[in-house]
Parts: sequence; C-alpha cells; structure tokens
Amino acid sequence: MSDLVEDLLAGEHRALARVISKIEDRSPGYREIVSELHRHTGSADVIGVTGSPGAGKSTLVDKVAATYRERGETVGVIAIDPSSPFTGGAVLGDRIRMGSNAGDMDVFFRSMSARGSLGGLSTATTDAVTALDAFGKDRVIIETVGAGQNEIDIVRTADTVAVLVPPDSGDDVQMLKAGILEIADLFAVNKADLDGANRTVQQLKEMLHYGQGRAGSDADDWEPPVIETIADSGEGVEEFMAAVDDHLDYLDASGQREAKQRSRYAAEIRALVRADTNDLLEAELAQRGGIEAYVDEIVARESDPYTVTEEIVAPLRECLDAPSQD
Amino acid sequence: MSDLVEDLLAGEHRALARVISKIEDRSPGYREIVSELHRHTGSADVIGVTGSPGAGKSTLVDKVAATYRERGETVGVIAIDPSSPFTGGAVLGDRIRMGSNAGDMDVFFRSMSARGSLGGLSTATTDAVTALDAFGKDRVIIETVGAGQNEIDIVRTADTVAVLVPPDSGDDVQMLKAGILEIADLFAVNKADLDGANRTVQQLKEMLHYGQGRAGSDADDWEPPVIETIADSGEGVEEFMAAVDDHLDYLDASGQREAKQRSRYAAEIRALVRADTNDLLEAELAQRGGIEAYVDEIVARESDPYTVTEEIVAPLRECLDAPSQD
Repeated sequence: MSDLVEDLLAGEHRALARVISKIEDRSPGYREIVSELHRHTGSADVIGVTGSPGAGKSTLVDKVAATYRERGETVGVIAIDPSSPFTGGAVLGDRIRMGSNAGDMDVFFRSMSARGSLGGLSTATTDAVTALDAFGKDRVIIETVGAGQNEIDIVRTADTVAVLVPPDSGDDVQMLKAGILEIADLFAVNKADLDGANRTVQQLKEMLHYGQGRAGSDADDWEPPVIETIADSGEGVEEFMAAVDDHLDYLDASGQREAKQRSRYAAEIRALVRADTNDLLEAELAQRGGIEAYVDEIVARESDPYTVTEEIVAPLRECLDAPSQD
Repeated sequence: MSDLVEDLLAGEHRALARVISKIEDRSPGYREIVSELHRHTGSADVIGVTGSPGAGKSTLVDKVAATYRERGETVGVIAIDPSSPFTGGAVLGDRIRMGSNAGDMDVFFRSMSARGSLGGLSTATTDAVTALDAFGKDRVIIETVGAGQNEIDIVRTADTVAVLVPPDSGDDVQMLKAGILEIADLFAVNKADLDGANRTVQQLKEMLHYGQGRAGSDADDWEPPVIETIADSGEGVEEFMAAVDDHLDYLDASGQREAKQRSRYAAEIRALVRADTNDLLEAELAQRGGIEAYVDEIVARESDPYTVTEEIVAPLRECLDAPSQD
C-alpha cells in the first residue's frame, strides 16, 4: 500500500486532499490508489443535491453539513462546477467554515470542474466519492447545478437525490419534467418564505400525484416528498435531513440500495472500458501514421470510411475471436 | 457489384429508395453498399438548412428544390426528424410534389428519424447523402430542426449551412449564439413581410459585425450574408440560392471545401471505429459471462472498477502492442 493511501486511511485530511487532486488531475498512479481504496468503501451515504442556479443549493448544503457535524457525523462535499475553471485547493473547507459552528476539517469541501471532458468529470466524481467513503466520511454530498445531461448523470450516482426548486417557478416546474423530475427522490422548495412558494409546492405535489416521471418505477413505490425549506434561517433543514434518511431507510429495506449500486458499477465498468479502448485506438491510429493517410485514400476514392474502419478494427476482432488463454 | 447498387447507379429511383431504407434500418449488407457507392461520390453540393420550428424551413426547402428542378438540376432532400417515429416510404416525394411544378421523381424527398441512437442517425444521414451523391443528384439538402447538439452535428456536415430565423425573434437571436450561429454560412430571415423582420435582420447584422461566432475563423474570411425571404410567395428564394452558390464558390476558391471534407471523413472514421469497438467489447463481455460476474466481485470488494476494466482491456492492449504482421 502506498504511504498516501495509508495516510488517507489513517484519517489525514491532507492525504485526502492530495488523493482527490491526483484523481482530478488524472496524475500517474491515481488508478492504483482508487483501486486500493475501493475495498475500504461501502459505509458512506451518498446524497446528491441539484437545482437551477439561485435555488439556494450551497446555502442548504452548508446548513445540512453543519447539522450533520453537530450530530457527530462526518461529511464530505463535492461541488461540481462544469463551467468555471478549477478553483483549486484554496477553497478547501472555506465555504463551509464560514457558515458553520463546526469550524473543523471534518466537513471536507471540494469544488471540482471539468478539466477535460464532462465524461471525465463524471468518472473523477465517482473516484472522489470513493476516496471520501474510504476515508470514513459518514455522509458524502454531491452538489451540482443540474444544467445538462452530464450533470444529471453525475448526481444520479448518489443514493438519494434531492432536487431544489425555487418558489414561484411555474415555468421551472414544467422544465423539471425534462430529466430532473425522473431522478428526484425528494423535492425541497427553498426560500419557502417568498411569494409563490405555496403554489410551487402545490404544483409539484400535483405532478407527483399524476405519476409523471419516476423512471423504473415498477419496483419502486417510493413517493418523493416535497419539503419546504428556508436555508438562510435553517428552517426546514431538519425536515429535509429526515426525508433523506427516510429515503435511505427505504432503499435498504427494499433492497434497492444494492440494486442501484450494482447498476452504477456496471455503468462505470462500461464507461471505463470505452474510454480506455478509445485511447488504445487513438494510439494505434497514431502508430499507423495517423488518420490523415486514411483520409487521403478516402478522398482519392481508393477506399471509403467503412473499409478503413474495418481495417482498423479487424486486428481487434481477430484478437478477441482467438481462443482465450486464461 | 450488387444488382441494387447497379440499379441505383443506373438512375432507378426505386433502388435509391431501397438503399436508403437499408441504410436507415442498418439492414445486413448496407455497409458494403455504402462502400461501393463511395467511389461514385464527390459531385453533389450538400446544403444544410436548419432553424427553429415554425421558421418556415420546409416551405423554403420545397421552393428551393422546385427552383433547382426548373433550372434542370436534380435534387435530393433528407429531412431529419429526431422526435417523431419513422414516417416511412409513403412520404417519398409527396411533400415536394404538392408544392412544385416539376412533379417528377428528380426531387427525391426522404424523411429520416432516430430509430436507435441519435449518433446512429448522424451516421445514417451521412450514408444517405453518399447514396444521393452517387445516384447523381446535383444538390442534396439536409433539413433539420436544429434543436440539439446532435442535430447541429448532422447539419454541419453540409458544405453550406443556412440558418432560418423567424422575424421579431429577439430572444431567438440571442439563443442562436449557442451553437447555431457558429455553423451558419448564411442566414435567411423568413416571413420577411411580417412585423419585426427588419429588426431581426438588423440584429443579425450587428451580431455578425461584432464578429461573434464563426468557429475556426482564422483561415475564414467569409462573412455570412443575411437574406430576406418570403418562402410562401417565393420572394427572396432566388437571392437565397445565389447566396448558397456564392458560398460554394468561396469554398472552392479558398480550398476549404476539400479541407472541410477531410475533417468530416476523419470524424466519420473515428465515430465508426468507436461504434464498432464498443460492439466488439459488448460481445466480449457477454462471452465472458456478462458484466454481472464482474459486478459481484466489485460489490464483494474482491475487485474494483479499474481492476476489472484492466482485465477486460488487457487482451486488446496486448494484441495491439504485438508487432503487426502487415
């Protein structure tokens, strides 16, 4: 085991921060580290929080994290920021500390952004959750803006997904139907003291009542509750946290936590295999003199895209068709 | 050469329709057909027409196609419809015929939709363009709604991309910035007799003047013209077609037609190789007893996603690293 892994498992936050940096940078050795850490995972609850900008996600997440700390639970927060450049280690813990009584490193806050592709961000987030879980955090919160499909894919890797809705967002509730509604295990109408909050709560309840959304709902009789919160004052935060725990209990009792985990692992294997194979093929193409020689043939009508593709893929096909030596 | 390919090259519209059906269905043998057809391509101008629903795309495309026919040029139209179910061969030519004096099959109209993935639709569209080009159509028009990234990817495979903008769409002009503006080689403000058309034309010209958009504009001194059309009455259609030809002339004179074509072929090779390799790996996974056995190991913490991925990818890596026998 590497020293870094050992230090992380011993509870050193500095080692945790370094591991997550390696994960984010795809530094040499990060895969071995994540592999080693995997066997120490399985005890954290992973909670996804998403919602449109201005819904009050960060305020609510800070309050929730602080309340977990007051109860003696440890927390890690990963805030996904796909648009802005990487904010770096300086943010570490700062945001949480300011708003919290805890003032300790047991709320570990990390902002992650897409250095490379958003697909890469998704894998990096999964790996960062592994690190936080192996470290021993009781609760891991993934916070995303929920803007695009990639972010939806990231937040849905959580055990429990909370969708924050701003009040009087009649249009937004309609918008929610496209992708977000399906993944919500609970809704929070935040800023519930503002005008229109009641109407938004009502709209959400009606939508849920008429059974729109909820993917894969055959084996799924969970009905997402709608919680009213005022994150600024802390009102409703306890109810929010109770609803999260209700859903986690439901997942355990119904066997769905394991089922969800299994399908997540399957998806992760597929994504990793795809990424690695693409890298291999790009290297193979480069070794064969690059793609331009093939393009020359196609332009000259001496070959065509399907024939070229078969030439490139054929060695793989033969290789895989050959009887295995295992 | 197959009879079907021979019939297509001999100018039989029925063979063309059957080939495009095979392409759309991914029927056995479609790849060999497209491969054979490729060497007969290279003479068609490919024109992409996109714009929001209600911008008047189909009316304009019909008028443009009919005008090409009156000039003695042959035309194929592929209308991309990613949302609705496949409309089938019945649509063949009907829409065009109704609005046209030509009344012949030399305007070949085909609606295509996403049977499988949108990625598949993109490949199928490219293949259908190959069939129309090999058939000898002088002009191939790809018509899309321009809603998502996939449709943008499809329409940008054209030599010349026209973006239709409805009048008084101040908000829409802002929206255009996200993706569509960059790919437009010319704009048409359709329904130019309606209120607000002048303002929209003005807004577009200002936006273009301030140089927003235009990806890869270093080697690119083409300034997209803004044409006013009234597709219903045919007003502006000649100007629209002249602007298309201006752009095609510009592409030829600047060498960009070939450069664009080369980068399209490179992208096509990569997409096909990726798709084929994914199929191979899924088959390999199935042969190894499916992904579930791997998930079992991961859940039991006997293995982890990266280790499993390496087990699956290692045979490919060895295979590709082995000295080539060519």
